[in-house]
Amino acid sequence: MDKLNLGVIGLGSRGYSVLVWLLLGMEDVNVTVVCDVYEDRARAGQRAVFEKTGKEPLMCLDYHDAIKAPGLDAVLIFTSWDTHAEIAIASMKAGIPVGSEVGCEYSLSNCQRLVDTYEDTGTPYMFMENCCYGKEELLATSMARRGLFGEIVHCAGAYAHDLRYEVAWGIENRHYRFRNYEHRCCENYPTHELGPIARLLDINRGNRIVSVVSLASKAAGLKAYIEKEAETKNVPEYMKTTSFMQGDIVTTILKCANGETIQLRLDTTLPRFYSRNFTVRGTKGLYEQDTNMVFLDGVHEDKYFDTVMSYEQFMNNAREYEKDYLPEVWKAVTPEVEAAGHGGMDYFVYRAFIEAVKNKTPMPIDVYDGVTWMAVGVLSEMSIRNNGAVQDMPDFTHGKWQTRPREDVVEM
Amino acid sequence: MDKLNLGVIGLGSRGYSVLVWLLLGMEDVNVTVVCDVYEDRARAGQRAVFEKTGKEPLMCLDYHDAIKAPGLDAVLIFTSWDTHAEIAIASMKAGIPVGSEVGCEYSLSNCQRLVDTYEDTGTPYMFMENCCYGKEELLATSMARRGLFGEIVHCAGAYAHDLRYEVAWGIENRHYRFRNYEHRCCENYPTHELGPIARLLDINRGNRIVSVVSLASKAAGLKAYIEKEAETKNVPEYMKTTSFMQGDIVTTILKCANGETIQLRLDTTLPRFYSRNFTVRGTKGLYEQDTNMVFLDGVHEDKYFDTVMSYEQFMNNAREYEKDYLPEVWKAVTPEVEAAGHGGMDYFVYRAFIEAVKNKTPMPIDVYDGVTWMAVGVLSEMSIRNNGAVQDMPDFTHGKWQTRPREDVVEM
Repeated sequence: MDKLNLGVIGLGSRGYSVLVWLLLGMEDVNVTVVCDVYEDRARAGQRAVFEKTGKEPLMCLDYHDAIKAPGLDAVLIFTSWDTHAEIAIASMKAGIPVGSEVGCEYSLSNCQRLVDTYEDTGTPYMFMENCCYGKEELLATSMARRGLFGEIVHCAGAYAHDLRYEVAWGIENRHYRFRNYEHRCCENYPTHELGPIARLLDINRGNRIVSVVSLASKAAGLKAYIEKEAETKNVPEYMKTTSFMQGDIVTTILKCANGETIQLRLDTTLPRFYSRNFTVRGTKGLYEQDTNMVFLDGVHEDKYFDTVMSYEQFMNNAREYEKDYLPEVWKAVTPEVEAAGHGGMDYFVYRAFIEAVKNKTPMPIDVYDGVTWMAVGVLSEMSIRNNGAVQDMPDFTHGKWQTRPREDVVEM
Repeated sequence: MDKLNLGVIGLGSRGYSVLVWLLLGMEDVNVTVVCDVYEDRARAGQRAVFEKTGKEPLMCLDYHDAIKAPGLDAVLIFTSWDTHAEIAIASMKAGIPVGSEVGCEYSLSNCQRLVDTYEDTGTPYMFMENCCYGKEELLATSMARRGLFGEIVHCAGAYAHDLRYEVAWGIENRHYRFRNYEHRCCENYPTHELGPIARLLDINRGNRIVSVVSLASKAAGLKAYIEKEAETKNVPEYMKTTSFMQGDIVTTILKCANGETIQLRLDTTLPRFYSRNFTVRGTKGLYEQDTNMVFLDGVHEDKYFDTVMSYEQFMNNAREYEKDYLPEVWKAVTPEVEAAGHGGMDYFVYRAFIEAVKNKTPMPIDVYDGVTWMAVGVLSEMSIRNNGAVQDMPDFTHGKWQTRPREDVVEM
């Protein structure tokens, strides 16, 4: 397979930008189908492909048509969260390998259906979690794999991203977040932080998430934001009267079969700067992504009782470990790759999918990973609704987590 | 009351150092009684008082004797965690105002007994949580009180303090931590971070903690530490064979009646530097103690997608707010006060107790505060033992939290 015939389903902002900035620049990819329920978006995608390649891809408004397109080798899904599963299931049934963008899932049954369909059809499925290819996440994972942090006992991470503008004004741009924040309260986007943690902790490969507990703060951020917007802008009535269910801070704790805890924070409706804070804690040391800091027993010393002085001393010292521990692909990263999306990790995740389809090798982030991570969202919703009651994580591997081989997630 | 006749019960490292560095330097304090179950410690306390004042205080080995000493105006308790309550109860019954050092409690019934005894006797009780007087905690609380962070929806904090040496070698120094880490698994020291958060959120004064959820990671840190110690030191057999129950990282989430969440982290048996990370999140901004950082909506901007660059930009910028928001006592702090214990906050908490006893004014951190904060430890133990099951916080105020007046916790 020299060139892969690819279908792109969903051409909102994420789909369109991955198409233009990544896929159209890849020499071994033909985008032969573009699909969106909104004709203007589908047409914009079609135009972008034509302008770059001189060839006009098939344009569809219905994904059922898209996956039937002749000669299609694989599809990528960039649609709204609540349509990822059904499109992936239809693709797998049609025998078309599928890469699904990240998001949250709404029901355990949809998670199970994804697994069942994969097991029934054998069609490859990849969950496109770009943060699994993040530079800091891979540096820290590489150090963990080489034992620098000792036995790992705890990891933490966050999706801390001020999305108030995107959520509040989202419907104007046909975005699905508004309705989610209106109707639901949960860890609605767990995978950016959980994905890399799960890989480091060998989840579904000798380890397993066994339970989820989640609590949400009150929802005050969006209301305050919209009130402030209304002082200077013409804010539509529906925005002013909507009351949002989604708590501003959702704290989730996962327990793993091997005794580790994982703490997640969803943090999207209060003022702050972006952070994922991938954090690794072991018997010999720690890594914290926010400050890109390493602290190793016997190497670094708690010289001060003053935490700020410690941060000033150690901040960004993880750079010193890149020479020995950063994966080769990141050492060789080009400015073009870094510019192509989220500092480079988008390129790596899409290349991983394309290589796996072309070479018929196992998907590096498979359906078991994807559904386990998304199920955290479902279980967090149930836990929050029950004041923090513990929820059991289903074993989507049917016991095979005990024997599925540990993955080398660092060397790509 | 010109001079207060004070009894000091418990002369281990905390009691002895508060005696020598703080109490003996106060002109309005006579230390007339010293008490410890270990005679050498009691005698050392007696000697320290004599050397400083020329007067020999009464020395007791039994606290029952200490609180009966003639002319005693108040006692301070510095004993092991599991004796705080019984001594405080005996003192209140004897009509002697009592200041109890911080620690954890072991049973809800002891918490209730403290409240009942206080209500029966009317004897003042203060919980000596020094971190309620911390400089950063008070700066951020002052900013919150003046509305800079908008509506507060979430707070977080940690007791992150590498105590491996103290715990592992503790018995050699007759310390109680070893047995606690051997037998129990819980948030065993919640009040350093929870105290200042509870005051900011008006807990027991218009707000209330309603539930506690807690999960612990596996316990691996102490075992690894002791194994490493054994490579170079003569480590006693009991240390090598003890298996510790206490998980290395305990994550706790509290829910408040007014909808806020509070996240706590106990983090004492892995390598790291000291941190309490008092964190305040509101609709208009945030404060983070670890990096002493303020981020306000419309003032500070998320210029970068790169979190480290944001930290480099904003770190320690809270200093800019000290002029307008730092409480006066901290502006006027002297080098002597700062040197007298934990950067100055020890001085303030002990002065607060002494002033309240002398002036017969209400204790600034009263029995309801103390037992609520300590009960978090009890409930976390129950939650962890039940895989994270939600535990209800008793209402120790019997409903009076709704009407107890909000406190000005900033102006001291």
